[in-house]
Amino acid sequence: MEDCIFCKIVEGQIPCYKVFEDEEVLAFLDITPATKGHTLIIPKAHFENIFDIPEGLLARISKVAQILAQEFENKLKADGFNLIQSSKEHAQQEVDHFHMHLLPRYAGDKMDLWKTKKDHPIEDNLEQTHKTLS
Amino acid sequence: MEDCIFCKIVEGQIPCYKVFEDEEVLAFLDITPATKGHTLIIPKAHFENIFDIPEGLLARISKVAQILAQEFENKLKADGFNLIQSSKEHAQQEVDHFHMHLLPRYAGDKMDLWKTKKDHPIEDNLEQTHKTLS
Repeated sequence: MEDCIFCKIVEGQIPCYKVFEDEEVLAFLDITPATKGHTLIIPKAHFENIFDIPEGLLARISKVAQILAQEFENKLKADGFNLIQSSKEHAQQEVDHFHMHLLPRYAGDKMDLWKTKKDHPIEDNLEQTHKTLS
Repeated sequence: MEDCIFCKIVEGQIPCYKVFEDEEVLAFLDITPATKGHTLIIPKAHFENIFDIPEGLLARISKVAQILAQEFENKLKADGFNLIQSSKEHAQQEVDHFHMHLLPRYAGDKMDLWKTKKDHPIEDNLEQTHKTLS
């Protein structure tokens, strides 16, 4: 897709530190890593988010995350992993080409995914929310 | 598995606000939600994390996340979603039964997944890290 930075990476118009590639999927280091080895796993074809990515491709991306976690655990001595996917602007998606973050974690790293949850706890009526969802 | 709180939820020994169930997968509201509708999607069978969950089950859980995102967008008027999976203690996994967070997001919510990344930026030599991974 024109003007999509990840499509340009797929096409080789923009360089990347590639860590995995097959016919459908590309994975490369995030250039502003949250932790050492922070990687983005993307479909080569342009899909925007969780709403439009085909089921089989989502499954393949999840599988690649498994493969890389195993590999990074050995090579980077990471001791845990987060998978993070953000769909749409209010979920903090910054590039509108589907991407799954694979975040290696280390004892003593400074990441805290739930920092703002702790700082701004919400009160929710679960019974009411459950009813809304039924 | 004995002493696993999520296994007890699967078996009905501990109640939950169920939002989805099929033969292999259960989804229920997180009792300490980060946002309204915060849901945990789990395999009914006990697997610990990204390292031991079978590929097909991971694919099914990802598919259920897609289904629920579509449903929650309509019913909760959510405007974006995060998928978050944490494997092992240093990745902030708190229950050792595989779970995928589905986090509905809303304009103006207080969540910021990357708050600590912004507060504690790391310097990493990507070329070196890439070499380590090659």
